[in-house]
Amino acid sequence: MATSKLIPPHGSDELKILLLDGKEREDELKRAESLPKVTMTTRETGDLIMLGIGGFTPLEGFMGKDDWKGVCEEMKMANGIFWPIPVTLSHDEKIDPGTDIALISGETNEIMGTMKVTECYQIDKEFECKHVFTTADPEHPGVKMVMSQKDYNLAGPVKVLSESYFPERFKGIYQRPAESRKAFEEKGWKTIAALQLRNPMHRSHEYLAKIAIEVSDGLYIHQLVGGLKPGDIPADVRVKCINTLVENYFVKDRVMTGGYPLDMRYAGPREGLLHAVFRQNFGCTHMIIGRDHAGVGDYYGPFDAQNIFHELPEGALLCKMLPIDWTFYCYKCEGMASMKTCPHGKEDRLFLSGTALRKALSEGGDVPNEFSRKEVLAILREYYGGLQDDQRVEVKMHGHATGDAKKK
Amino acid sequence: MATSKLIPPHGSDELKILLLDGKEREDELKRAESLPKVTMTTRETGDLIMLGIGGFTPLEGFMGKDDWKGVCEEMKMANGIFWPIPVTLSHDEKIDPGTDIALISGETNEIMGTMKVTECYQIDKEFECKHVFTTADPEHPGVKMVMSQKDYNLAGPVKVLSESYFPERFKGIYQRPAESRKAFEEKGWKTIAALQLRNPMHRSHEYLAKIAIEVSDGLYIHQLVGGLKPGDIPADVRVKCINTLVENYFVKDRVMTGGYPLDMRYAGPREGLLHAVFRQNFGCTHMIIGRDHAGVGDYYGPFDAQNIFHELPEGALLCKMLPIDWTFYCYKCEGMASMKTCPHGKEDRLFLSGTALRKALSEGGDVPNEFSRKEVLAILREYYGGLQDDQRVEVKMHGHATGDAKKK
Repeated sequence: MATSKLIPPHGSDELKILLLDGKEREDELKRAESLPKVTMTTRETGDLIMLGIGGFTPLEGFMGKDDWKGVCEEMKMANGIFWPIPVTLSHDEKIDPGTDIALISGETNEIMGTMKVTECYQIDKEFECKHVFTTADPEHPGVKMVMSQKDYNLAGPVKVLSESYFPERFKGIYQRPAESRKAFEEKGWKTIAALQLRNPMHRSHEYLAKIAIEVSDGLYIHQLVGGLKPGDIPADVRVKCINTLVENYFVKDRVMTGGYPLDMRYAGPREGLLHAVFRQNFGCTHMIIGRDHAGVGDYYGPFDAQNIFHELPEGALLCKMLPIDWTFYCYKCEGMASMKTCPHGKEDRLFLSGTALRKALSEGGDVPNEFSRKEVLAILREYYGGLQDDQRVEVKMHGHATGDAKKK
Repeated sequence: MATSKLIPPHGSDELKILLLDGKEREDELKRAESLPKVTMTTRETGDLIMLGIGGFTPLEGFMGKDDWKGVCEEMKMANGIFWPIPVTLSHDEKIDPGTDIALISGETNEIMGTMKVTECYQIDKEFECKHVFTTADPEHPGVKMVMSQKDYNLAGPVKVLSESYFPERFKGIYQRPAESRKAFEEKGWKTIAALQLRNPMHRSHEYLAKIAIEVSDGLYIHQLVGGLKPGDIPADVRVKCINTLVENYFVKDRVMTGGYPLDMRYAGPREGLLHAVFRQNFGCTHMIIGRDHAGVGDYYGPFDAQNIFHELPEGALLCKMLPIDWTFYCYKCEGMASMKTCPHGKEDRLFLSGTALRKALSEGGDVPNEFSRKEVLAILREYYGGLQDDQRVEVKMHGHATGDAKKK
């Protein structure tokens, strides 16, 4: 029997943990108060926390220009290590290299960390967008995020002082890589598949999840608890849906749930790769990549995020993709199926657009059992029922505007 | 994109094909007629054909004593190559090394091949049984087969002259490794899972098959068309069932069917390994191992055949196991599930013993849709309906006697 050693972190023998604690943290916090302050967006704050807890191992801070360029062009940092999406910090003023700065959350005003600035540089944002998102269309929410960054990027090693509200607000869900790894070791799991979630789990997600369980030791349902685009289901509602589903339809020993603090970038294929990189840091050997993973609108082909994994050079990424085709309920198969396993026609299959689902849920219409479990639907009905009329309209319109209707 | 190179054969860069054709075959056949004749059992004949078509690559003939002993004790031949079950030929008289012999099918009297005897040796049959079957109980059908072998084992390189009735009787199903490999290459499949079948496919097998398809490029449904124990469904009926199921419930591009000429040995774990070895020769990268694979009665724990794969030294066997838990229909899950994915109780699950199924089929009782597809049941009903009463009794009694009721 092979020993139950977990997969190593990405590009490193151990997790690179930049979060301070105890006296060291106290002292640094005191020092930070007198430093020049740089305010971060939620995206930057989420990235900083991931740097802190080792989720972005082997990074030691925000990226300098060489890393930024290599990552954009070749998904490779200056040291040769694979990385698919820039992790950068922007600021509206130049700061001299050598300066120590305090990093402030723009959302909560909390001091989140400190950084020794080693580099201050300007980037071609369009260049970044075209490489990372394959588009510079300002309607793309990820592009919008990059284009609204400030003029200068600041690079340097960070010390992280807080995980913000995540541990408290998402108690029992938010998890550090060291925690998930410890849990996996205790369970004796060796092959662990990660399921990325930013929506409630319907039966199609349950099917992905269960295929993964059938072929692995366990499943890590890993939800984004950071920022989403407007109209997406808020994280706390989603957490409730997922917990209910797991409670009623999963074998407890085979599944673990967790949450991570990043904002969605909607970078499709590149984000699929980033998902695999940090899941490896959380201890997972496989990353489930379904249809239109991390996509938005029509920007990516439905299986672009699977194809990009095939193009990686050997050894670039230890965490492997577990690709799964478009899934649905088929009335002739009498069960869940995918394009790979069901030979029947469109008319035999149940498809429900995001828009149709939201309409049914907010207006009390029927949602078939074959689409979603009754326990999950009850929670969603309650959420949509509680929305004000204007929010409801916004939710629905946004669904349309971003092409979300075609999402699972 | 990695090139679509198939997995190499076991222990060799290319298939070891010992089957002659054309003039070479004609000449050898003529020569064989004047040689001393050794009559083979169906098991030995099936093994010889597998040697001929390269299914038993890298073997060049029946095993000598060192190989036999190494295989029994350590699953390793004298040359260090992994092999899990002896491939031997027995005879009731001593034959001097150096003698050329003709190999005759005891079933059809056809000359199947020739062998240059390099060794004639006696074995401790009980020793073989205890290692290979983990029991010497004469009720075990595999043990019975070994114990009824003749007194001497003959070893030596073989030339194979015929594939017997397999290509004709199982036209479209019987396949050589070179044929399956060619087909896989044409389909562009790289990861191919093999499903071993010696019974009709019910929904539990369909579920195994479909999980494998979800996570591979394609599935090779590979049926045994050699000998079974009395009471098992004959190969031609089974072939019909499987073809109907594939026709109605599988995506054509994702599945291929084939048949191989071996007799079952019912060696459980060791036979699971043998199944993986020769599936690798047929071009498969994964071997599905479900509950009680190749088992019989109560001789093996339900997952012994999975566990043995974990004990292999690194590199011993390139074809990997795809382990799948006990599968069934669950009324609460509203679909197929396994012990790994369904948290519900016994009372929610549909189990049907082999005995109950046979009773329902032969007496016209109901078999639920959730157990087997209607198209498959129709074929089985026809088969059982056509049996004579005494055959029916034998079928049922045998089911009991061998503990077959507990088989899937």
